[in-house]
This record gives sequence, C-alpha cells and structure tokens, in this order.
Amino acid sequence: METNIKNLQDVLDNIQPIDESMVEQAKEHTAKLAVPPRALGRLHDIGEKLCGIMGSQDPDVASKAVIVMAGDHGIVDEGVSAFPQEVTGEMVKNFLAGGAGINCLCRHVGAKVIVVDMGMKVDPMALGLETGDIFFSHKIAPGTENFAKGPAMTKEQAEKAILCGFERASALINEGVQVLGTGDMGIGNTTPSAAIGAVLTGASLDDMTGRGTGVDDEGLQRKKAAIQKGIDVNQPDPKDGLDVLAKVGGYEIAGIAGIVLAAAYHKKPVVIDGFISTAGALIAHALCPLAGQYMFAGHCSEEPGHKLMLDHLGLKPILDLGLRLGEGTGGALAMNILEASVKVFKEVLTFEQAGVTNKE
Amino acid sequence: METNIKNLQDVLDNIQPIDESMVEQAKEHTAKLAVPPRALGRLHDIGEKLCGIMGSQDPDVASKAVIVMAGDHGIVDEGVSAFPQEVTGEMVKNFLAGGAGINCLCRHVGAKVIVVDMGMKVDPMALGLETGDIFFSHKIAPGTENFAKGPAMTKEQAEKAILCGFERASALINEGVQVLGTGDMGIGNTTPSAAIGAVLTGASLDDMTGRGTGVDDEGLQRKKAAIQKGIDVNQPDPKDGLDVLAKVGGYEIAGIAGIVLAAAYHKKPVVIDGFISTAGALIAHALCPLAGQYMFAGHCSEEPGHKLMLDHLGLKPILDLGLRLGEGTGGALAMNILEASVKVFKEVLTFEQAGVTNKE
Repeated sequence: METNIKNLQDVLDNIQPIDESMVEQAKEHTAKLAVPPRALGRLHDIGEKLCGIMGSQDPDVASKAVIVMAGDHGIVDEGVSAFPQEVTGEMVKNFLAGGAGINCLCRHVGAKVIVVDMGMKVDPMALGLETGDIFFSHKIAPGTENFAKGPAMTKEQAEKAILCGFERASALINEGVQVLGTGDMGIGNTTPSAAIGAVLTGASLDDMTGRGTGVDDEGLQRKKAAIQKGIDVNQPDPKDGLDVLAKVGGYEIAGIAGIVLAAAYHKKPVVIDGFISTAGALIAHALCPLAGQYMFAGHCSEEPGHKLMLDHLGLKPILDLGLRLGEGTGGALAMNILEASVKVFKEVLTFEQAGVTNKE
Repeated sequence: METNIKNLQDVLDNIQPIDESMVEQAKEHTAKLAVPPRALGRLHDIGEKLCGIMGSQDPDVASKAVIVMAGDHGIVDEGVSAFPQEVTGEMVKNFLAGGAGINCLCRHVGAKVIVVDMGMKVDPMALGLETGDIFFSHKIAPGTENFAKGPAMTKEQAEKAILCGFERASALINEGVQVLGTGDMGIGNTTPSAAIGAVLTGASLDDMTGRGTGVDDEGLQRKKAAIQKGIDVNQPDPKDGLDVLAKVGGYEIAGIAGIVLAAAYHKKPVVIDGFISTAGALIAHALCPLAGQYMFAGHCSEEPGHKLMLDHLGLKPILDLGLRLGEGTGGALAMNILEASVKVFKEVLTFEQAGVTNKE
C-alpha cells in the first residue's frame, strides 16, 4: 500500500471509480433481510455504498481516525472573524490535551484524533507542543497571505500542502485505519471556504457567506467585501481546483483536500465535516470528480452556504443537528452512523435465516 | 423508587414538570465551553434538556434499554397489511434470537432489548419461547378486536395494558436503566396508529395514513376505509386518551404509552421511535401533557403522518434517515446522540480550563 507518490498528477491519475458490482451485490443481500423492503432507509444505502467503496461484501469501519488540519489566514487582516488569531494555536493545544469538542466526540465514536500543523502562524514549540504520534508538523508557511491583496499561496505551496495531507492520511490507512474524518482549525477559515464555495459552485456571495464563529452584521459585510475583493484581484479559474486553492484557499483546506484524495486513492470512505471541510472536498472534487464517490457528508452545517456545497457534490448530509463548530465534529458523530450501517448489513438476519414469513 | 401504583390516575397525578432551573444552570455552563456560542447546536439543547429531566448537572444515559411491545390487531381482517399475522410471533422469536434490526442497533449503542407480549395472537410457548430476563408476558388478550366493527378493547383492558407497560418500564428503571426507548411489533399496527394520530391531532386520514410495511394502492384505500369506519362506528373522544386507545388502539400501543408515563413518573428520558411508538406517545400525552417534557423524538419516519404527530407533541426528530422499520430502531440509534450530548456537556473544557482566548 506504499504510495511512492511524487506529484499530484500521480495521485489524480490513480483514483478509480467505486465498484458498482459490489453495490449491486449488496443491494441483493439487503433485499433478503427480514425487514420490509429497504425499511432501514439510508442505513441500507450507506452500507451498500461502503461495499462499493471498499470493494467487499464484508466492509468494516471499526478503525476510525479524524485528522484535524490547522492553519492561519492572512485574510483576518480584513476583520472577518469574531475571534483573535492566537486561538488557532490555543485550540490545537486543547486538541492535544483532549479537551475539545472533537476529542469528546471522537472518544464517543471510538476514533483517534490526529492534529497537523499545515500552516499555523504560531510556532507550536512556543506553545510547548511537541510533534509525535498525534501531532505532526507539515507547516508550509506561517499562515497564508491576505488573499484580498493577492494569491493566498503559490501553486507550488498549494500542491505541496495537498500532498502533505495525502501522505498523512495514507500513513493512517497503511496503519489500518478504515474510515477517515476531516477536521479543521483556523481562525478566519470560513472566509476562504466561502470564496472557494462561491467560485466552484457558482453561488452568489450572499448565499455562500455566513457568520462563521459569530461575526456581527458589520463583520459579515466586511467578510463579503474581502471575498469579493479577493476574487476580483485574483480571478481564480473555476475549472482549475489548484488555482482556486492557491488564490483564495488555505493550508488546512489543502490538507483536507489531500485527505479526501488519499481516501479515494486507497478505496476508503471519508466523512466530510462542515463548511471548511467541504471547501476542501470541493477542491478535491474539482481536481478529480471521481473522488466524490468516496465521500460521505457527515452533517449539514448551520453555515448557510454549506448546503449549496453539498448539492454541488451530490451529497446528502447524514446528520442535521445545527452544528457549526468544525474541528471535524459533525463528521466524527456521523462515523457512528456508518458503523451502524455496516452492522445492519452484516448482522441483521435474512427472512430465511430468521424463519420469518415474507409477504403474503 | 417502588411505585405501589394501583391505578392509572395515581400515575398521572404524580407526574411533575421537568426542572427548568436545572436547564437554565446547564445553559450557563454551556456558555462557558471553549466553542463559539452554542456551536454544537442540538447537542447542547439535548444535554441541557437531560439536565432538566434528570434534575441534575451530572446527567447520565449510559445504561439504556429498549422495550419492544408486541401485539396483534383484529383490524387485519380488513386487509390492511402487506404481511400475514403470524409474522408478529416470528419476529418476536427473531428478537429473542438477536437477529433483528433492533438487536443489531441496540448492540451498536449498548442498549439492552426487552420484549413484552402485550397481546399477540399466538401463544409464545407454541413458538418455543419462554419468558425470562428479556421476554415477559403481559398478554391482555390474543389480539385486539376488529375496530372497524366495535371497540378494539375495553377501557379496563386499555388501562391494564398501560399499567403493565408502566410496571415493566419502572422495573427497568429500578434496576438502574437511565434512558428508555420504545419499540413495537405487531402486523397491522400502522392502522390503529394512524387512527390514533388522526383523532388526537385532528389531521385528515389522507395526511395521516401511509403504506406501513408496503401495501399497494388498493391496500392503502382499504386501510383508510377501515380507519374511517372505525372512527364512525366508535366515535372516539379526542379529549379522552383512554377512550381513543380502547376504541381504535392496540395492546402494544398501550404498553408504549405506559413506558412513556413511567419515564415521566421516574424523571427519566424516553426516546420515542417512529409512527407506532409516537401513537403510544400521543396517548400518554393526551392522558398527561406533562409527559411530553420527558420525550425525545428519535427520528422522523418515512410514514407520512409521523411528522404531524411530532408537530402535535412539539418534538423535533433527532435523526432523519428514511427509516420505517419500527421495532424501536430509530430511537435506539438516537440514544447514541443523547449519549454524545451528555459527553459534550460534561467533557468539553471551558475557555478558562482550556486556556483559550474568548472573543475579542
């Protein structure tokens, strides 16, 4: 399962569609279960999709990991966030101490949490944080440039960041992880996410831009203006995912795109979290539409543009609980539903096995 | 916690509202967590409601049980179901063997499954089933009467059935169970449930009646006609829950109403499953509106009338995954979200504890 990947094109060229024959075979099995036809609804759909993704009638998602990608954003200079930038590092410290929402929900669903510095402004050593089993540094730069004034990063940086995410996720898969969740931390990161969403889905900034962690009305106007300026200045090409990422994206968003591509490359499911994660998924999808077949939308965020992004990807969220935290929390919680779906597929007896009379 | 309950009125008279001061105190705690304001949405709401229900800032729902109430229905003589009546007993046998959807999902969430014969037509001994730790007989009668021709049961039978459900649920709570789920098995039981739903919510039969386990168009017309006939013949009084239950209900539905009342009586949360369970919850609510405060709607069923029932109860479903199996499956899966909510409430660190800067 070693990748030996040297560049992004190698990744993209080696992503295959899911195995539709396995989905069909799984549907035949579901039809025999001692329940009215497809009475467990989306649990059947999810279990069958997992068969197609994993190329197996015996899928397993017991081994789970959420990778939280962290990065900072030059665009905060435009006054787009309700929280100060030092919170990115402080929250990473909280993740490593096990005290955040993502830690709590990952413990709940039995997933491990991996944190990656993709481009935090702060030096983690200054916060007393050491890299190791659960914390990795792939810092491309200490935060992006302010994309209202020029590109957030170079194309080379964008490709490198995606490949770092790809390698980190591939390493986990090589260690036996069966399902990946995407997570994010980065003060200001709903701003590049809304920019990516608007460019790649074609939606208006009014529809795509929300309040993030809670900016007020004036902050929301500043945020929309900054994104509009960034699009005008940079002219990102909606047909070129790498161009969009480099011009108006972020390092943690690039890392998330890399996770998604790794899942598709290795034929493993990936559960996308909310608005920022889905911006990363949009980049991955723009680079390689087949990657969309390996995605599950964990939940529908309160951030208004999220549904538009999911529609663009053809994904229906598993949960809808009004979450808007990020960190990977909604995806982590939805992993539990994936696991339930696998158990329904494998453990529920057929009419014949259970000795139950089928329809009259 | 012994109940010494002699009659239904004793139960109803002793149900108290939830502790709103505990909800308020819980909200104050949530406001301190190191997340943007209420960023975990309904997980916060659910955790706080559990504080109110359990009268504690340290709620716990780790110990879970789903009680599957089984009963048969004279109304099947009208040709209202896609499955033959012997399936009720066969499925109970499947539940006790651990092979059904409810067993699978209860194993997944760590809930025990209890099965109660409230009024199956078949003698369980004839199926080789013995009562014991997980199977109980409170058979009121071998199936209800055909309610298209007269009352489904007497008022005495209805009260006795509710009290049996109450006692069974109370016994579990006395053993330490912290959250109850309601489940049902009974061929034909979407028919009395639709009748109860129409009478108690005031909705039309067209809006309230669906295909259950999958009747065709003609079956659906027969089903609506049978319910209409039952309502015309019996004239159930929408102001009298016991009257509605006796005239157009079922024994397993009565048992479910008893579970709900027990949860409210003992200040424990109860997770309502789909269409049939919610018909039972409507009866409990009609008898004692305060009982509604202890309910969670596990999911929204594909059965079209279910949403109308939930609206009447003021409940918003936790999951919406297109389930229409019953057995308690949707409620069981939602217990996992209740448990996640409790963990968020108790385990996520505050800004102060985590050393994270709050808003600028």
